[in-house]
Amino acid sequence: MMKRIFEIDPWLVQSHELHPQEMRLQESLTAIGNGYMGMRGNFEEGYSGDHLQGTYLGGVWFPDKTRVGWWKNGYPQYFGKAINAPSFIGIGIRINGEKVDLATGKFRDFRIALDMHQGLLTRTFIYEVESTTVRLTFRRFLSNEIKEAGLIEVVAQVLSGQASIDFAATLDGNVSNEDSNYDERFWQPVEEDAQAQNIQLITKANPYQVPRFTVLLKQALRLNGKPVQTTNETASGLATARVSTTLNAGQSVTLEKDVIVLTSRDVAPDKQPQTATALMTQLQTESFDQRLARHTAIWASRWAQSDVVIDGDDAAQQGIRFNIAQLFMTYYGEDKRLNVGPKGFTGEKYGGATYWDTEAYVVPMYLAVTPPSVTRALLEYRHDQLPGAYHNAQQQGLKGALFPMVTFNGIECHNEWEITFEEIHRNAAVAFAIYQYTAYTGDESYVNHDGMEVLIGISRFWADRVHFSKRKGCYMIHGVTGPNEYENNVNNNWYTNTMASWVLEYTLARLPKADPAVLAALSVTEAEKAHWQDIIDRMYYPVDKKLGIFVQNDTFLDKDLQPASAIPQDQRPINQHWSWDHILRSPYIKQADVLQGIYFLNDRFTREQKERNYDFYEPLTVHESSLSASIHAILAAELGKQEKAVELYRRTARLDLDNYNNDTADGLHITSMTGSWLAIVQGFAGMRYDHDRLRFKPFLPKQWTHYNFKLTYRGRLLAVDVGQKTLITLLEGEPLDIDVAGQPVHLVKEGQHA
Amino acid sequence: MMKRIFEIDPWLVQSHELHPQEMRLQESLTAIGNGYMGMRGNFEEGYSGDHLQGTYLGGVWFPDKTRVGWWKNGYPQYFGKAINAPSFIGIGIRINGEKVDLATGKFRDFRIALDMHQGLLTRTFIYEVESTTVRLTFRRFLSNEIKEAGLIEVVAQVLSGQASIDFAATLDGNVSNEDSNYDERFWQPVEEDAQAQNIQLITKANPYQVPRFTVLLKQALRLNGKPVQTTNETASGLATARVSTTLNAGQSVTLEKDVIVLTSRDVAPDKQPQTATALMTQLQTESFDQRLARHTAIWASRWAQSDVVIDGDDAAQQGIRFNIAQLFMTYYGEDKRLNVGPKGFTGEKYGGATYWDTEAYVVPMYLAVTPPSVTRALLEYRHDQLPGAYHNAQQQGLKGALFPMVTFNGIECHNEWEITFEEIHRNAAVAFAIYQYTAYTGDESYVNHDGMEVLIGISRFWADRVHFSKRKGCYMIHGVTGPNEYENNVNNNWYTNTMASWVLEYTLARLPKADPAVLAALSVTEAEKAHWQDIIDRMYYPVDKKLGIFVQNDTFLDKDLQPASAIPQDQRPINQHWSWDHILRSPYIKQADVLQGIYFLNDRFTREQKERNYDFYEPLTVHESSLSASIHAILAAELGKQEKAVELYRRTARLDLDNYNNDTADGLHITSMTGSWLAIVQGFAGMRYDHDRLRFKPFLPKQWTHYNFKLTYRGRLLAVDVGQKTLITLLEGEPLDIDVAGQPVHLVKEGQHA
Repeated sequence: MMKRIFEIDPWLVQSHELHPQEMRLQESLTAIGNGYMGMRGNFEEGYSGDHLQGTYLGGVWFPDKTRVGWWKNGYPQYFGKAINAPSFIGIGIRINGEKVDLATGKFRDFRIALDMHQGLLTRTFIYEVESTTVRLTFRRFLSNEIKEAGLIEVVAQVLSGQASIDFAATLDGNVSNEDSNYDERFWQPVEEDAQAQNIQLITKANPYQVPRFTVLLKQALRLNGKPVQTTNETASGLATARVSTTLNAGQSVTLEKDVIVLTSRDVAPDKQPQTATALMTQLQTESFDQRLARHTAIWASRWAQSDVVIDGDDAAQQGIRFNIAQLFMTYYGEDKRLNVGPKGFTGEKYGGATYWDTEAYVVPMYLAVTPPSVTRALLEYRHDQLPGAYHNAQQQGLKGALFPMVTFNGIECHNEWEITFEEIHRNAAVAFAIYQYTAYTGDESYVNHDGMEVLIGISRFWADRVHFSKRKGCYMIHGVTGPNEYENNVNNNWYTNTMASWVLEYTLARLPKADPAVLAALSVTEAEKAHWQDIIDRMYYPVDKKLGIFVQNDTFLDKDLQPASAIPQDQRPINQHWSWDHILRSPYIKQADVLQGIYFLNDRFTREQKERNYDFYEPLTVHESSLSASIHAILAAELGKQEKAVELYRRTARLDLDNYNNDTADGLHITSMTGSWLAIVQGFAGMRYDHDRLRFKPFLPKQWTHYNFKLTYRGRLLAVDVGQKTLITLLEGEPLDIDVAGQPVHLVKEGQHA
Repeated sequence: MMKRIFEIDPWLVQSHELHPQEMRLQESLTAIGNGYMGMRGNFEEGYSGDHLQGTYLGGVWFPDKTRVGWWKNGYPQYFGKAINAPSFIGIGIRINGEKVDLATGKFRDFRIALDMHQGLLTRTFIYEVESTTVRLTFRRFLSNEIKEAGLIEVVAQVLSGQASIDFAATLDGNVSNEDSNYDERFWQPVEEDAQAQNIQLITKANPYQVPRFTVLLKQALRLNGKPVQTTNETASGLATARVSTTLNAGQSVTLEKDVIVLTSRDVAPDKQPQTATALMTQLQTESFDQRLARHTAIWASRWAQSDVVIDGDDAAQQGIRFNIAQLFMTYYGEDKRLNVGPKGFTGEKYGGATYWDTEAYVVPMYLAVTPPSVTRALLEYRHDQLPGAYHNAQQQGLKGALFPMVTFNGIECHNEWEITFEEIHRNAAVAFAIYQYTAYTGDESYVNHDGMEVLIGISRFWADRVHFSKRKGCYMIHGVTGPNEYENNVNNNWYTNTMASWVLEYTLARLPKADPAVLAALSVTEAEKAHWQDIIDRMYYPVDKKLGIFVQNDTFLDKDLQPASAIPQDQRPINQHWSWDHILRSPYIKQADVLQGIYFLNDRFTREQKERNYDFYEPLTVHESSLSASIHAILAAELGKQEKAVELYRRTARLDLDNYNNDTADGLHITSMTGSWLAIVQGFAGMRYDHDRLRFKPFLPKQWTHYNFKLTYRGRLLAVDVGQKTLITLLEGEPLDIDVAGQPVHLVKEGQHA
């Protein structure tokens, strides 16, 4: 089921072959981004074969109509999607009049490489037009230094014959979204300025009071390092700058295309032309290589805190670096109005919006590999969207705050009732992220102020959402979808009940230290606290004493409980072969559900509980969510099932590089990319951080000679090296007491501990 | 919550007032049809205010795209909808140059009346243009004699002044559907013939291999009974025939517009012009009044077998006649490719397709009030669609035949998974209709041949759809939506489990008498029969012994069981006020669920069982389906709860006339109109027909002095009159032994029995 089109290399995603049948996959895997914007690995010169054109701008989205066909009361009015943005990649090239096009032309010595050190995409090939041969080499990156800047360089070197080369650099707003429902165009041209080489466009009007976005794109060309006079044209939503040159064999020319992209999120539409001009002037004070060096330096400082080295398994090595690089290209906390979209800037599906993935899977990794401010920005994002969360709860007739399943602005914008209305466990993950941040960093300033507003809002939601079953004499939560989305509208999902109760418990525990002004403003009464305590005390948890397991939800055990291994291979993945009702009544689990709870609240369960539940549920799990393998890898590691842990690690680390789920063509699984890091650090190295103490319990996978990772923890930077021995080094910061394999270890800088 | 805009009258739906705010409601209530086509009560001269234009042709539909937004494997590709057809109603009128328009003009003495004797719509008013006053009187009907013919007459009588009157009769294909998702037009013009006054249109292309429909409309005018030379014009999809006249006070003119409507369902597109000409010639051999007389005679013969007379309650009288008339205008079995759409020819919602309503609610009434061939046509419709039913099951990975929730051609075309994939109890209702037909008529020719093919297909579906729960040691049905659509994806819905088992039982019972050729062709083996018997023997039925009830589905009793009376009035109906998750986890029931099973299999339960279940479930029922009240009325009557029965009867009988559900503006609730008849006959009169014997157990509602209905039964026509005494008369046919109030009665023609 795996498909690998790139070579194994520790720092490169590289191929020496073009696969026209896998162009979309190649484009996904060579996507680059800088947190502000991103793009798929489309070709500058254009490509007439099947591919998916994609440029995406952080926070630029459109509320697409959901109200088609059947409709249920309270549904969101729109589904938000990050739309394909005007494209600035284009550099059309003609050689002796023939348009360069790898879908139709003759070429050799092709190579494409994404350098993960710095998110630089390089591509080269020798193109033949009759007896003339020209080597074309492209480099491009989106600057980490000047976020609005994209830099593209193309070098044309004539190897034989004489070449008249025409370049046509374009800014093109005539783009479409493949996932639009009725082939709508989302962009309308506002203005084109041939002289300034600007185009400005606005997202089309919508009836939902969602602001429209105006973007301005500006380009300027340099030939052999010097600004060059170009022949400029415009058409509706399109600007073209042309320059031509004639070269003999052995001669070469370097064309640089500098781009500035502004959006009305940051710069008012009428100010955009002048701001773009100023930024372009600033950008062009240095050369492509100088700007690349500054950009790379920023990457280097990030890698210094986050790199993972694996010896003895190059595929595993490449996988983890690819994941870290793509995560950082998606989000590094610079704009706290943004979040980590499930496909980042690499595709249309999931529309670039925010899911619970962030809190459940991204936060625990980011805490350790980025400065605390980066994770805190993710928490502040939710606090800033609290009004939307109150709105969502109200839409369902409930009190408190319900954070959305999918959103750009805090307001729920997904339109399947079984998700929108019922997958409410997300509302516990948002609270759990506050716990994680506080427990890991020791910084209580969020939880005591803004975070407390979030916790109280969420607690009030849960307190209203439970009902009391007179018959059973306890509180229940009916009608939910748990993390296992292969069951819908179930009653008493153990995970949801457990986490709901945990939220109330955590909120009550934090209340005494909270900012009194927050408590006063929100009028938390003794009666309310007592009610929360009553829910905690009398919450219903489905369990099976005979099997010694927590039961996923009511009546789960009445199913026909065949293991996943009984599913014929030609019916996998089941979500591409079975109709929905078949999936729902099957016992098969998409991703960790009970085990997600055991992962989150790890210190509350005995080893036997963990083992029994793991042994019961993992065999029923089809891991068809990209979020599944990592959690299972961590628990497998904890339970000493090392081979299983490594197998699951491999699946999560190379999910996209090996296209395991056969859907990477649509874009990368950004949010689940943290899974490989979590599997190594929390799994193989057994890192835990609850109870104010960092702990490790490492093992070395058989195939590896050693692995090494960095951790930022409470002002320290640690290096953890696991080989035949474990070596933990304090690289920066004050001395620290930790546990390794159950033994206390005192770390001091430059000190060594086995 | 009720809104009544028409006067109470035993045979008329009449108003002397125009309600511009309620135009859509008025249009629904004055819809007419003849089984072949139908139309809302739109105005011939046009109306510029808010209204819903609607003309519908039986079996003419379009497969509208469902694949928008999120999508689940196995979903139907399209949602079928009966589209608004080209309109033939138009007769524009100008008086002294001013366009007659009741939305803007000056008028008085307005009256509109639907005569239920014969489905004739009459409308009259005096229109004033300065000092000129003209009485305009319209009559129209869709012929029961020549199905393709619509006849419209307008009489203009000048009361004062001199009137120059211009008529512009139109055929207009430029129509739209309000419920289209993206404002698509479904019709494309093919040809217009000004001379012949024809327009021909075709439904737009679709990618689903669904045939396109071509329709031809033809008009011809008669002035004062004579064919008249008109000035003819055409435009794209539009034909206009003009005629003018000038009248003095006291003079009048009669304009007849004769219309022929053909579709490619019956006449190939290239043959349509000549066929239409021939039909028009035939039509015009007689006058409007002569054609009306023939049409009325057909109605009279239908009423003779079906009329219900209620003395002492004029509103109830009007309600039942309105329902019978609208049902007969929708379906009288002439075209077995058609079925009874939930809104008939009166609106867009529900798209004119076939639902399980037909088998569950229409069949039991039609059996008794129409010739057996009419009900048999409904059964043959399902048999003819058996290939589609096999396809539907296969789509879900299941064996056997699954009849669709919504269809035109047998293939499921609804797109909510909780309905399409899960509301599978419909597949038992189709089998139950075979039982009903056979038990009522005594005709075994269907069940032994075509019907057996249907029963085996359905049985095989159920046998594959159940699963065996090892834990509980019995067969279960997980993941269904029962008749109560206010719960989705529940496990072991008692009704579904009961009816599934009943189907297997009935099929096994019928097998010995079935056509051996059918059994051989379908290879029913002993092993298969044994497996069916095993399912019957070990089916799981949720029950609660303490409460003495059948439990609607697993965990239903864990809900917060508050009675429906606890819902604040301003939150009713809950489906317009509560979000879907709130409804789902509430204990509130949309329509009979357990009680539907007790209604169907009435002879299998004790009075105590019926009583306990009724007393438990009815208080939880919000009756927000138009199909709910009748079943409850019947059971209430059986249990001696006469007041409740009458209250529920009233709700079902006048659901549309009093606009109880506030949605009649969209169209009438055609399929649930049988409910009032069922409530009277099976409820008040206690009619049962199982075990090959007709039985009655009548009571007389307090407010009524007596009621009277007719029944066709096994070649007999009976009149049942219930007053202080019950009088049952055999009007036609051989002597018959029946039971009345538990006593055997021998009926002979002309005989009288108390």
